[in-house]
Amino acid sequence: MKQRYVHGYHPHEHERLQDQGNSLVELIHGDTAYSRDSLVLEVGCGVGVQTVVLAQRSPEARFVAIDRSKASLAIARRRVNAAHLPNVEFRQANIFALPFAEHSFDHVFVCFVLEHLPNPARALTLLKRVLKPGGSITIIEGDHGSTYFHPENAAARAAIQCQVTLQAHAGGNALLGRQLSPLLIGAGFGRVGVQPRMVYVDASRPDLVEGFTRKTFTAMIEGVRAPAIATGLTTPRRFDAGIRALYRTARADGVFCYTFFKGVGEKLRGGPRRRLRKLRLRRSGGTDS
Amino acid sequence: MKQRYVHGYHPHEHERLQDQGNSLVELIHGDTAYSRDSLVLEVGCGVGVQTVVLAQRSPEARFVAIDRSKASLAIARRRVNAAHLPNVEFRQANIFALPFAEHSFDHVFVCFVLEHLPNPARALTLLKRVLKPGGSITIIEGDHGSTYFHPENAAARAAIQCQVTLQAHAGGNALLGRQLSPLLIGAGFGRVGVQPRMVYVDASRPDLVEGFTRKTFTAMIEGVRAPAIATGLTTPRRFDAGIRALYRTARADGVFCYTFFKGVGEKLRGGPRRRLRKLRLRRSGGTDS
Repeated sequence: MKQRYVHGYHPHEHERLQDQGNSLVELIHGDTAYSRDSLVLEVGCGVGVQTVVLAQRSPEARFVAIDRSKASLAIARRRVNAAHLPNVEFRQANIFALPFAEHSFDHVFVCFVLEHLPNPARALTLLKRVLKPGGSITIIEGDHGSTYFHPENAAARAAIQCQVTLQAHAGGNALLGRQLSPLLIGAGFGRVGVQPRMVYVDASRPDLVEGFTRKTFTAMIEGVRAPAIATGLTTPRRFDAGIRALYRTARADGVFCYTFFKGVGEKLRGGPRRRLRKLRLRRSGGTDS
Repeated sequence: MKQRYVHGYHPHEHERLQDQGNSLVELIHGDTAYSRDSLVLEVGCGVGVQTVVLAQRSPEARFVAIDRSKASLAIARRRVNAAHLPNVEFRQANIFALPFAEHSFDHVFVCFVLEHLPNPARALTLLKRVLKPGGSITIIEGDHGSTYFHPENAAARAAIQCQVTLQAHAGGNALLGRQLSPLLIGAGFGRVGVQPRMVYVDASRPDLVEGFTRKTFTAMIEGVRAPAIATGLTTPRRFDAGIRALYRTARADGVFCYTFFKGVGEKLRGGPRRRLRKLRLRRSGGTDS
Protein backbone atom coordinates (compact mmCIF):
# COMPACT_ATOMS: atom_id res chain seq x y z
CA MET A 1 0.00 0.00 0.00
CA LYS A 2 1.43 3.34 -1.04
CA GLN A 3 0.98 6.22 1.40
CA ARG A 4 2.11 9.80 1.27
CA TYR A 5 3.43 11.49 4.42
CA VAL A 6 1.56 14.78 4.67
CA HIS A 7 4.49 16.66 6.23
CA GLY A 8 6.93 15.59 3.49
CA TYR A 9 10.61 14.84 3.88
CA HIS A 10 12.28 18.22 3.34
CA PRO A 11 15.26 19.43 5.45
CA HIS A 12 13.14 22.37 6.66
CA GLU A 13 10.62 19.86 7.99
CA HIS A 14 13.36 18.13 10.01
CA GLU A 15 14.12 21.44 11.73
CA ARG A 16 10.46 21.88 12.55
CA LEU A 17 10.22 18.42 14.08
CA GLN A 18 13.40 19.19 16.03
CA ASP A 19 11.89 22.41 17.46
CA GLN A 20 8.71 20.57 18.30
CA GLY A 21 10.67 17.86 20.08
CA ASN A 22 12.65 20.35 22.19
CA SER A 23 9.86 22.59 23.43
CA LEU A 24 7.39 19.87 24.30
CA VAL A 25 9.64 17.19 25.72
CA GLU A 26 8.59 17.62 29.34
CA LEU A 27 4.89 17.95 28.60
CA ILE A 28 4.78 14.83 26.48
CA HIS A 29 7.58 12.57 27.72
CA GLY A 30 7.92 13.66 31.36
CA ASP A 31 6.32 10.45 32.61
CA THR A 32 7.61 7.94 30.05
CA ALA A 33 10.35 5.70 31.43
CA TYR A 34 11.26 2.06 30.88
CA SER A 35 13.01 -0.20 33.36
CA ARG A 36 16.45 -1.86 33.03
CA ASP A 37 16.78 -4.42 30.24
CA SER A 38 13.25 -3.98 28.95
CA LEU A 39 13.04 -4.18 25.16
CA VAL A 40 10.97 -1.38 23.64
CA LEU A 41 9.72 -1.07 20.07
CA GLU A 42 9.45 2.49 18.78
CA VAL A 43 7.19 2.53 15.76
CA GLY A 44 7.62 5.17 13.05
CA CYS A 45 10.66 6.82 14.62
CA GLY A 46 11.08 9.16 11.64
CA VAL A 47 14.17 11.35 11.97
CA GLY A 48 14.70 10.19 15.56
CA VAL A 49 13.57 13.20 17.59
CA GLN A 50 11.54 11.12 20.05
CA THR A 51 14.06 8.26 19.86
CA VAL A 52 16.80 10.41 21.39
CA VAL A 53 14.49 11.51 24.20
CA LEU A 54 13.36 7.94 24.92
CA ALA A 55 16.88 6.51 24.91
CA GLN A 56 18.25 9.32 27.09
CA ARG A 57 15.44 9.01 29.64
CA SER A 58 15.66 5.22 29.90
CA PRO A 59 19.39 4.56 29.42
CA GLU A 60 19.18 1.01 30.76
CA ALA A 61 16.34 -0.05 28.47
CA ARG A 62 16.97 -1.20 24.90
CA PHE A 63 15.12 0.26 21.93
CA VAL A 64 14.35 -1.04 18.48
CA ALA A 65 13.26 1.91 16.34
CA ILE A 66 11.57 1.25 13.02
CA ASP A 67 10.51 3.46 10.16
CA ARG A 68 9.53 2.78 6.55
CA SER A 69 11.76 5.61 5.23
CA LYS A 70 15.39 4.73 4.71
CA ALA A 71 16.30 8.44 4.42
CA SER A 72 14.64 9.25 7.78
CA LEU A 73 16.39 6.31 9.43
CA ALA A 74 19.78 7.60 8.20
CA ILE A 75 19.11 10.96 9.88
CA ALA A 76 17.80 9.27 13.03
CA ARG A 77 20.92 7.10 13.22
CA ARG A 78 23.20 10.15 12.94
CA ARG A 79 21.18 11.94 15.63
CA VAL A 80 21.35 9.00 18.04
CA ASN A 81 25.10 8.57 17.40
CA ALA A 82 25.70 12.28 17.99
CA ALA A 83 23.97 11.91 21.36
CA HIS A 84 26.20 8.91 22.20
CA LEU A 85 23.29 6.58 22.83
CA PRO A 86 24.30 2.92 22.48
CA ASN A 87 20.90 1.50 23.41
CA VAL A 88 19.08 1.98 20.10
CA GLU A 89 18.93 -0.35 17.10
CA PHE A 90 17.32 0.88 13.87
CA ARG A 91 15.47 -1.21 11.33
CA GLN A 92 13.59 -0.34 8.17
CA ALA A 93 10.11 -1.80 8.46
CA ASN A 94 6.46 -1.13 7.76
CA ILE A 95 4.00 -1.13 10.63
CA PHE A 96 1.61 -3.27 8.56
CA ALA A 97 4.30 -5.91 7.89
CA LEU A 98 6.26 -6.12 11.14
CA PRO A 99 9.34 -8.37 10.86
CA PHE A 100 9.05 -9.54 14.48
CA ALA A 101 7.72 -12.70 16.12
CA GLU A 102 4.75 -12.69 18.49
CA HIS A 103 5.63 -11.57 22.05
CA SER A 104 8.95 -9.93 21.00
CA PHE A 105 8.75 -6.72 23.02
CA ASP A 106 8.17 -5.66 26.61
CA HIS A 107 6.70 -2.33 25.53
CA VAL A 108 5.62 -0.48 22.42
CA PHE A 109 5.88 3.28 21.89
CA VAL A 110 4.06 5.16 19.10
CA CYS A 111 4.31 8.94 18.74
CA PHE A 112 2.75 11.06 15.97
CA VAL A 113 2.28 8.00 13.75
CA LEU A 114 -1.30 6.66 13.98
CA GLU A 115 -2.63 10.00 12.69
CA HIS A 116 -0.92 9.26 9.36
CA LEU A 117 -2.21 5.71 8.91
CA PRO A 118 -5.25 4.69 6.87
CA ASN A 119 -6.17 1.99 9.40
CA PRO A 120 -4.92 2.79 12.91
CA ALA A 121 -7.15 0.12 14.48
CA ARG A 122 -5.46 -2.57 12.36
CA ALA A 123 -2.02 -1.17 13.26
CA LEU A 124 -2.83 -1.47 16.97
CA THR A 125 -3.91 -5.09 16.55
CA LEU A 126 -0.61 -5.89 14.80
CA LEU A 127 1.40 -4.08 17.49
CA LYS A 128 -0.45 -5.97 20.21
CA ARG A 129 0.68 -9.22 18.61
CA VAL A 130 4.42 -8.42 18.94
CA LEU A 131 3.93 -7.24 22.54
CA LYS A 132 4.50 -9.63 25.46
CA PRO A 133 1.54 -10.34 27.75
CA GLY A 134 1.67 -7.80 30.56
CA GLY A 135 3.50 -5.31 28.32
CA SER A 136 2.37 -1.75 27.73
CA ILE A 137 1.67 0.37 24.69
CA THR A 138 2.07 4.16 24.83
CA ILE A 139 0.53 6.31 22.12
CA ILE A 140 0.99 10.05 21.70
CA GLU A 141 -0.96 11.92 19.03
CA GLY A 142 -2.02 15.47 18.32
CA ASP A 143 -5.50 16.62 17.38
CA HIS A 144 -5.78 19.64 15.08
CA GLY A 145 -9.45 20.02 16.04
CA SER A 146 -8.22 20.99 19.51
CA THR A 147 -6.71 24.20 18.11
CA TYR A 148 -8.16 27.57 19.05
CA PHE A 149 -6.65 30.96 19.58
CA HIS A 150 -7.10 34.64 20.21
CA PRO A 151 -7.69 36.73 18.17
CA GLU A 152 -10.19 34.37 16.55
CA ASN A 153 -9.82 34.39 12.74
CA ALA A 154 -11.71 32.57 9.98
CA ALA A 155 -8.79 32.55 7.50
CA ALA A 156 -6.55 30.94 10.13
CA ARG A 157 -9.17 28.23 10.70
CA ALA A 158 -9.43 27.68 6.93
CA ALA A 159 -5.63 27.30 6.63
CA ILE A 160 -5.65 24.69 9.41
CA GLN A 161 -8.52 22.92 7.67
CA CYS A 162 -6.32 22.68 4.52
CA GLN A 163 -3.86 20.60 6.55
CA VAL A 164 -6.67 18.43 7.98
CA THR A 165 -8.10 17.82 4.50
CA LEU A 166 -4.70 17.06 2.93
CA GLN A 167 -3.91 14.64 5.73
CA ALA A 168 -7.26 12.92 5.12
CA HIS A 169 -6.51 12.76 1.37
CA ALA A 170 -3.21 11.07 2.24
CA GLY A 171 -5.13 8.44 4.23
CA GLY A 172 -4.56 9.93 7.68
CA ASN A 173 -6.67 11.63 10.35
CA ALA A 174 -5.49 14.88 11.94
CA LEU A 175 -8.29 14.61 14.54
CA LEU A 176 -7.11 11.28 15.90
CA GLY A 177 -5.87 12.36 19.34
CA ARG A 178 -9.34 12.43 20.90
CA GLN A 179 -9.96 8.85 19.72
CA LEU A 180 -7.12 7.13 21.58
CA SER A 181 -9.34 5.63 24.26
CA PRO A 182 -11.87 3.93 21.93
CA LEU A 183 -9.01 2.85 19.62
CA LEU A 184 -7.05 1.17 22.43
CA ILE A 185 -10.15 -0.47 23.91
CA GLY A 186 -11.28 -1.56 20.44
CA ALA A 187 -7.92 -3.27 19.83
CA GLY A 188 -8.35 -5.30 23.03
CA PHE A 189 -5.93 -3.49 25.31
CA GLY A 190 -6.77 -3.39 29.01
CA ARG A 191 -6.20 -0.84 31.80
CA VAL A 192 -6.57 1.91 29.19
CA GLY A 193 -5.92 5.42 30.41
CA VAL A 194 -5.83 8.55 28.27
CA GLN A 195 -4.67 11.98 29.39
CA PRO A 196 -4.89 15.21 27.44
CA ARG A 197 -1.69 17.24 27.43
CA MET A 198 -2.85 20.74 26.67
CA VAL A 199 -0.41 23.36 25.46
CA TYR A 200 -1.65 26.77 26.58
CA VAL A 201 0.46 29.61 25.21
CA ASP A 202 0.27 33.25 26.20
CA ALA A 203 2.87 36.01 26.52
CA SER A 204 3.96 34.67 29.93
CA ARG A 205 5.53 31.68 28.12
CA PRO A 206 7.87 33.15 25.47
CA ASP A 207 9.51 29.73 25.02
CA LEU A 208 6.20 28.24 23.88
CA VAL A 209 5.26 31.31 21.82
CA GLU A 210 8.46 30.75 19.85
CA GLY A 211 8.87 26.98 20.12
CA PHE A 212 5.26 25.94 19.74
CA THR A 213 2.94 28.61 18.27
CA ARG A 214 5.43 29.93 15.72
CA LYS A 215 7.99 27.23 15.00
CA THR A 216 5.88 24.12 15.49
CA PHE A 217 2.22 24.68 14.74
CA THR A 218 2.22 27.63 12.36
CA ALA A 219 5.34 26.33 10.58
CA MET A 220 3.54 23.00 10.07
CA ILE A 221 0.50 24.70 8.54
CA GLU A 222 2.76 26.90 6.39
CA GLY A 223 4.37 23.69 5.17
CA VAL A 224 1.23 22.63 3.26
CA ARG A 225 0.91 25.92 1.32
CA ALA A 226 1.98 24.49 -2.06
CA PRO A 227 -0.19 21.33 -2.05
CA ALA A 228 -3.14 23.22 -0.53
CA ILE A 229 -3.06 25.71 -3.40
CA ALA A 230 -2.24 23.09 -6.05
CA THR A 231 -5.24 20.95 -5.08
CA GLY A 232 -7.57 23.96 -5.09
CA LEU A 233 -8.31 23.88 -1.36
CA THR A 234 -7.38 27.55 -1.04
CA THR A 235 -5.91 30.55 -2.87
CA PRO A 236 -2.49 32.10 -2.16
CA ARG A 237 -4.17 35.24 -0.82
CA ARG A 238 -6.56 33.37 1.48
CA PHE A 239 -3.92 30.95 2.75
CA ASP A 240 -1.35 33.66 3.43
CA ALA A 241 -3.97 35.68 5.35
CA GLY A 242 -4.55 32.62 7.52
CA ILE A 243 -0.84 32.20 8.21
CA ARG A 244 -0.51 35.90 9.11
CA ALA A 245 -3.44 35.49 11.51
CA LEU A 246 -1.75 32.48 13.14
CA TYR A 247 1.46 34.48 13.64
CA ARG A 248 -0.74 37.28 15.01
CA THR A 249 -1.72 34.97 17.92
CA ALA A 250 1.97 34.89 18.92
CA ARG A 251 1.96 38.60 19.75
CA ALA A 252 1.87 39.98 23.31
CA ASP A 253 -1.95 39.95 23.59
CA GLY A 254 -2.43 36.68 21.72
CA VAL A 255 -3.27 33.21 23.03
CA PHE A 256 -2.84 29.82 21.40
CA CYS A 257 -4.22 26.45 22.53
CA TYR A 258 -3.53 22.93 21.30
CA THR A 259 -3.91 19.52 22.90
CA PHE A 260 -1.88 16.35 22.55
CA PHE A 261 -3.24 13.10 23.89
CA LYS A 262 -1.21 10.42 25.62
CA GLY A 263 -2.80 6.99 25.91
CA VAL A 264 -1.50 3.90 27.67
CA GLY A 265 -2.86 0.36 27.45
CA GLU A 266 -1.76 -3.07 28.59
CA LYS A 267 -1.79 -6.40 26.81
CA LEU A 268 -3.55 -8.39 29.49
CA ARG A 269 -2.03 -11.72 30.53
CA GLY A 270 -4.05 -14.63 29.21
CA GLY A 271 -6.39 -14.43 26.24
CA PRO A 272 -10.13 -13.88 26.51
CA ARG A 273 -10.62 -17.62 27.05
CA ARG A 274 -8.28 -17.72 30.06
CA ARG A 275 -9.86 -14.61 31.58
CA LEU A 276 -13.32 -16.17 31.14
CA ARG A 277 -12.11 -19.33 32.92
CA LYS A 278 -10.71 -17.21 35.79
CA LEU A 279 -14.03 -15.45 36.10
CA ARG A 280 -15.95 -18.76 36.22
CA LEU A 281 -13.58 -20.15 38.85
CA ARG A 282 -14.02 -17.04 40.96
CA ARG A 283 -17.79 -17.24 40.67
CA SER A 284 -17.85 -20.94 41.63
CA GLY A 285 -15.58 -20.28 44.59
CA GLY A 286 -12.60 -22.12 43.04
CA THR A 287 -9.07 -20.82 42.62
CA ASP A 288 -6.98 -20.25 39.54
CA SER A 289 -3.36 -21.38 39.48
CA MET B 1 -28.52 48.99 30.16
CA LYS B 2 -30.88 46.07 29.71
CA GLN B 3 -29.24 42.71 29.17
CA ARG B 4 -30.70 39.29 28.67
CA TYR B 5 -29.15 36.29 30.39
CA VAL B 6 -28.75 33.65 27.69
CA HIS B 7 -29.36 30.69 30.02
CA GLY B 8 -32.63 32.15 31.37
CA TYR B 9 -33.99 31.83 34.87
CA HIS B 10 -36.10 28.64 34.76
CA PRO B 11 -36.11 26.09 37.61
CA HIS B 12 -34.70 23.46 35.22
CA GLU B 13 -31.72 25.77 34.60
CA HIS B 14 -31.04 25.94 38.36
CA GLU B 15 -30.76 22.14 38.44
CA ARG B 16 -28.32 22.24 35.54
CA LEU B 17 -26.13 24.81 37.29
CA GLN B 18 -26.32 22.66 40.42
CA ASP B 19 -25.10 19.57 38.51
CA GLN B 20 -22.37 21.63 36.91
CA GLY B 21 -21.30 22.92 40.30
CA ASN B 22 -21.12 19.46 41.85
CA SER B 23 -19.18 17.61 39.17
CA LEU B 24 -16.55 20.26 38.53
CA VAL B 25 -15.89 21.61 41.99
CA GLU B 26 -12.47 20.06 42.42
CA LEU B 27 -11.27 20.89 38.92
CA ILE B 28 -12.26 24.53 39.17
CA HIS B 29 -12.13 25.44 42.86
CA GLY B 30 -9.55 22.98 44.18
CA ASP B 31 -6.98 25.73 44.61
CA THR B 32 -9.18 28.68 45.57
CA ALA B 33 -8.92 29.54 49.28
CA TYR B 34 -9.04 32.82 51.20
CA SER B 35 -7.36 33.48 54.52
CA ARG B 36 -8.99 34.33 57.87
CA ASP B 37 -10.87 37.64 58.01
CA SER B 38 -10.27 38.52 54.37
CA LEU B 39 -13.25 40.20 52.74
CA VAL B 40 -14.10 38.74 49.33
CA LEU B 41 -16.50 40.13 46.73
CA GLU B 42 -18.24 37.48 44.63
CA VAL B 43 -19.59 39.12 41.50
CA GLY B 44 -22.66 37.68 39.75
CA CYS B 45 -23.29 34.93 42.30
CA GLY B 46 -26.51 33.87 40.53
CA VAL B 47 -28.31 31.09 42.40
CA GLY B 48 -25.34 30.65 44.74
CA VAL B 49 -23.77 27.43 43.46
CA GLN B 50 -20.22 28.80 43.57
CA THR B 51 -21.01 30.86 46.67
CA VAL B 52 -21.62 27.72 48.76
CA VAL B 53 -18.36 26.19 47.55
CA LEU B 54 -16.38 29.36 48.26
CA ALA B 55 -17.85 29.86 51.74
CA GLN B 56 -17.39 26.20 52.68
CA ARG B 57 -13.77 26.14 51.51
CA SER B 58 -12.81 29.38 53.23
CA PRO B 59 -14.96 29.31 56.41
CA GLU B 60 -12.91 32.03 58.13
CA ALA B 61 -13.14 34.50 55.23
CA ARG B 62 -16.17 36.76 54.77
CA PHE B 63 -18.01 37.01 51.46
CA VAL B 64 -20.19 39.67 49.92
CA ALA B 65 -22.07 38.08 47.02
CA ILE B 66 -23.81 40.33 44.54
CA ASP B 67 -26.16 39.69 41.64
CA ARG B 68 -28.47 41.91 39.64
CA SER B 69 -31.35 39.39 39.84
CA LYS B 70 -33.44 39.52 43.01
CA ALA B 71 -34.97 36.12 42.21
CA SER B 72 -31.56 34.48 41.89
CA LEU B 73 -30.40 36.09 45.14
CA ALA B 74 -33.43 34.65 46.97
CA ILE B 75 -32.47 31.15 45.81
CA ALA B 76 -28.81 31.75 46.64
CA ARG B 77 -29.76 32.91 50.13
CA ARG B 78 -31.85 29.76 50.75
CA ARG B 79 -28.98 27.60 49.48
CA VAL B 80 -26.41 29.27 51.72
CA ASN B 81 -28.74 29.04 54.74
CA ALA B 82 -29.41 25.35 54.07
CA ALA B 83 -25.64 24.79 54.13
CA HIS B 84 -25.41 26.65 57.48
CA LEU B 85 -22.87 29.16 56.21
CA PRO B 86 -22.84 32.33 58.32
CA ASN B 87 -20.01 34.03 56.40
CA VAL B 88 -21.95 35.27 53.35
CA GLU B 89 -23.84 38.54 52.92
CA PHE B 90 -25.97 39.04 49.79
CA ARG B 91 -26.66 42.29 48.03
CA GLN B 92 -28.52 43.17 44.85
CA ALA B 93 -26.15 45.15 42.63
CA ASN B 94 -25.03 45.62 39.06
CA ILE B 95 -21.38 45.08 38.18
CA PHE B 96 -21.40 48.32 36.17
CA ALA B 97 -22.72 50.36 39.13
CA LEU B 98 -21.00 48.86 42.16
CA PRO B 99 -22.28 50.30 45.47
CA PHE B 100 -18.86 50.01 47.15
CA ALA B 101 -16.10 52.50 47.91
CA GLU B 102 -12.63 52.24 46.40
CA HIS B 103 -10.37 49.68 48.15
CA SER B 104 -13.30 47.87 49.84
CA PHE B 105 -12.27 44.26 49.28
CA ASP B 106 -9.23 42.07 49.86
CA HIS B 107 -10.14 39.83 46.92
CA VAL B 108 -12.59 39.60 44.05
CA PHE B 109 -14.02 36.39 42.62
CA VAL B 110 -15.83 36.19 39.27
CA CYS B 111 -17.11 32.88 37.88
CA PHE B 112 -19.09 32.40 34.64
CA VAL B 113 -19.99 36.10 34.54
CA LEU B 114 -17.68 38.02 32.16
CA GLU B 115 -18.82 35.83 29.26
CA HIS B 116 -22.29 37.37 29.61
CA LEU B 117 -21.20 41.00 29.71
CA PRO B 118 -21.12 43.42 26.74
CA ASN B 119 -17.92 45.05 28.04
CA PRO B 120 -15.83 42.70 30.19
CA ALA B 121 -12.78 45.00 30.00
CA ARG B 122 -14.79 47.84 31.55
CA ALA B 123 -16.12 45.47 34.24
CA LEU B 124 -12.57 44.50 35.20
CA THR B 125 -11.54 48.14 35.53
CA LEU B 126 -14.50 48.79 37.85
CA LEU B 127 -13.70 45.69 39.92
CA LYS B 128 -10.07 46.74 40.21
CA ARG B 129 -11.23 50.02 41.74
CA VAL B 130 -13.05 48.34 44.68
CA LEU B 131 -10.09 45.99 45.28
CA LYS B 132 -7.40 46.90 47.84
CA PRO B 133 -3.83 47.32 46.58
CA GLY B 134 -2.14 43.93 46.86
CA GLY B 135 -5.48 42.15 46.53
CA SER B 136 -6.23 39.43 43.99
CA ILE B 137 -8.88 38.85 41.38
CA THR B 138 -9.82 35.33 40.32
CA ILE B 139 -11.78 34.79 37.13
CA ILE B 140 -13.20 31.50 35.90
CA GLU B 141 -14.84 31.29 32.49
CA GLY B 142 -15.69 28.61 29.96
CA ASP B 143 -14.96 28.73 26.23
CA HIS B 144 -17.39 26.97 23.91
CA GLY B 145 -14.82 27.07 21.11
CA SER B 146 -12.79 24.62 23.18
CA THR B 147 -15.44 21.93 22.64
CA TYR B 148 -14.67 18.88 20.54
CA PHE B 149 -15.79 15.30 20.72
CA HIS B 150 -15.87 11.86 19.17
CA PRO B 151 -17.70 10.93 17.06
CA GLU B 152 -17.27 14.23 15.22
CA ASN B 153 -20.61 15.59 13.98
CA ALA B 154 -21.54 18.70 11.98
CA ALA B 155 -25.07 19.00 13.40
CA ALA B 156 -23.66 18.94 16.94
CA ARG B 157 -21.24 21.74 16.04
CA ALA B 158 -24.10 23.73 14.50
CA ALA B 159 -26.21 23.32 17.67
CA ILE B 160 -23.31 24.61 19.79
CA GLN B 161 -22.90 27.52 17.36
CA CYS B 162 -26.57 28.44 18.02
CA GLN B 163 -25.67 28.96 21.67
CA VAL B 164 -22.56 30.99 20.77
CA THR B 165 -24.59 33.20 18.40
CA LEU B 166 -27.46 33.71 20.87
CA GLN B 167 -24.98 34.63 23.60
CA ALA B 168 -23.40 37.17 21.22
CA HIS B 169 -26.87 38.56 20.39
CA ALA B 170 -27.43 39.01 24.13
CA GLY B 171 -24.20 41.01 24.33
CA GLY B 172 -21.98 38.23 25.64
CA ASN B 173 -19.07 36.17 24.34
CA ALA B 174 -19.08 32.38 24.69
CA LEU B 175 -15.44 32.24 23.54
CA LEU B 176 -14.17 34.45 26.35
CA GLY B 177 -12.19 31.88 28.36
CA ARG B 178 -9.13 32.00 26.09
CA GLN B 179 -8.97 35.80 26.46
CA LEU B 180 -8.50 35.98 30.24
CA SER B 181 -4.80 36.79 30.07
CA PRO B 182 -5.07 39.77 27.67
CA LEU B 183 -8.19 40.98 29.51
CA LEU B 184 -6.47 40.97 32.91
CA ILE B 185 -3.30 42.58 31.58
CA GLY B 186 -5.34 45.13 29.64
CA ALA B 187 -7.17 46.14 32.82
CA GLY B 188 -3.85 46.83 34.52
CA PHE B 189 -3.59 43.79 36.80
CA GLY B 190 -0.12 42.47 37.54
CA ARG B 191 1.32 38.98 38.16
CA VAL B 192 -1.28 37.60 35.76
CA GLY B 193 -1.40 33.83 35.48
CA VAL B 194 -3.93 31.83 33.49
CA GLN B 195 -4.36 28.09 33.59
CA PRO B 196 -6.61 26.00 31.37
CA ARG B 197 -8.71 23.47 33.25
CA MET B 198 -9.54 20.90 30.65
CA VAL B 199 -12.38 18.44 31.17
CA TYR B 200 -11.58 15.22 29.28
CA VAL B 201 -14.43 12.74 29.40
CA ASP B 202 -14.33 9.14 28.24
CA ALA B 203 -16.02 5.95 29.46
CA SER B 204 -13.46 5.59 32.26
CA ARG B 205 -15.06 8.62 33.98
CA PRO B 206 -18.80 7.78 34.26
CA ASP B 207 -19.24 10.65 36.76
CA LEU B 208 -18.15 13.18 34.14
CA VAL B 209 -20.07 11.43 31.34
CA GLU B 210 -23.21 11.96 33.41
CA GLY B 211 -22.34 15.14 35.31
CA PHE B 212 -20.59 17.05 32.55
CA THR B 213 -21.22 15.74 29.01
CA ARG B 214 -24.92 14.97 29.54
CA LYS B 215 -26.20 17.09 32.40
CA THR B 216 -24.01 20.17 32.05
CA PHE B 217 -22.90 20.79 28.49
CA THR B 218 -25.55 19.05 26.40
CA ALA B 219 -28.31 20.19 28.77
CA MET B 220 -27.07 23.77 28.34
CA ILE B 221 -27.17 23.54 24.53
CA GLU B 222 -30.61 21.86 24.69
CA GLY B 223 -31.72 24.84 26.76
CA VAL B 224 -31.47 27.23 23.80
CA ARG B 225 -33.65 25.10 21.50
CA ALA B 226 -36.67 27.42 21.55
CA PRO B 227 -34.84 30.75 20.98
CA ALA B 228 -32.51 29.16 18.40
CA ILE B 229 -35.52 27.99 16.36
CA ALA B 230 -37.53 31.17 16.97
CA THR B 231 -34.71 33.39 15.69
CA GLY B 232 -34.20 31.23 12.60
CA LEU B 233 -30.71 30.05 13.52
CA THR B 234 -31.74 26.42 13.01
CA THR B 235 -34.68 24.11 12.36
CA PRO B 236 -36.20 21.67 14.88
CA ARG B 237 -34.95 18.71 12.83
CA ARG B 238 -31.40 20.05 12.51
CA PHE B 239 -31.14 21.15 16.13
CA ASP B 240 -32.49 17.87 17.50
CA ALA B 241 -30.02 15.92 15.33
CA GLY B 242 -27.22 17.98 16.92
CA ILE B 243 -28.47 17.23 20.42
CA ARG B 244 -28.72 13.51 19.65
CA ALA B 245 -25.13 13.62 18.34
CA LEU B 246 -23.96 15.31 21.55
CA TYR B 247 -25.64 12.59 23.66
CA ARG B 248 -24.01 10.05 21.33
CA THR B 249 -20.58 11.23 22.56
CA ALA B 250 -21.61 10.08 26.06
CA ARG B 251 -21.77 6.44 24.98
CA ALA B 252 -19.07 3.86 25.80
CA ASP B 253 -16.88 4.64 22.78
CA GLY B 254 -17.44 8.41 22.85
CA VAL B 255 -15.15 11.19 24.03
CA PHE B 256 -15.96 14.77 25.03
CA CYS B 257 -13.54 17.65 25.65
CA TYR B 258 -14.14 21.11 27.07
CA THR B 259 -11.84 23.65 28.70
CA PHE B 260 -12.46 26.17 31.45
CA PHE B 261 -9.91 28.89 32.10
CA LYS B 262 -8.90 30.15 35.52
CA GLY B 263 -7.08 33.47 35.62
CA VAL B 264 -5.57 35.27 38.59
CA GLY B 265 -4.26 38.81 38.73
CA GLU B 266 -3.11 41.21 41.42
CA LYS B 267 -3.81 44.89 41.94
CA LEU B 268 -0.23 46.04 42.30
CA ARG B 269 0.63 48.30 45.23
CA GLY B 270 1.22 51.84 44.05
CA GLY B 271 -0.13 53.23 40.81
CA PRO B 272 1.83 53.36 37.55
CA ARG B 273 3.47 56.63 38.71
CA ARG B 274 4.86 55.07 41.91
CA ARG B 275 6.11 52.01 40.00
CA LEU B 276 7.85 54.28 37.48
CA ARG B 277 9.52 56.13 40.36
CA LYS B 278 10.70 52.84 41.86
CA LEU B 279 12.18 51.83 38.53
CA ARG B 280 14.03 55.18 38.20
CA LEU B 281 15.38 54.88 41.73
CA ARG B 282 16.61 51.36 41.06
CA ARG B 283 18.32 52.48 37.86
CA SER B 284 20.00 55.44 39.58
CA GLY B 285 21.21 53.20 42.40
CA GLY B 286 18.87 54.81 44.96
CA THR B 287 16.45 53.04 47.29
CA ASP B 288 12.69 53.21 47.59
CA SER B 289 11.09 53.55 51.01
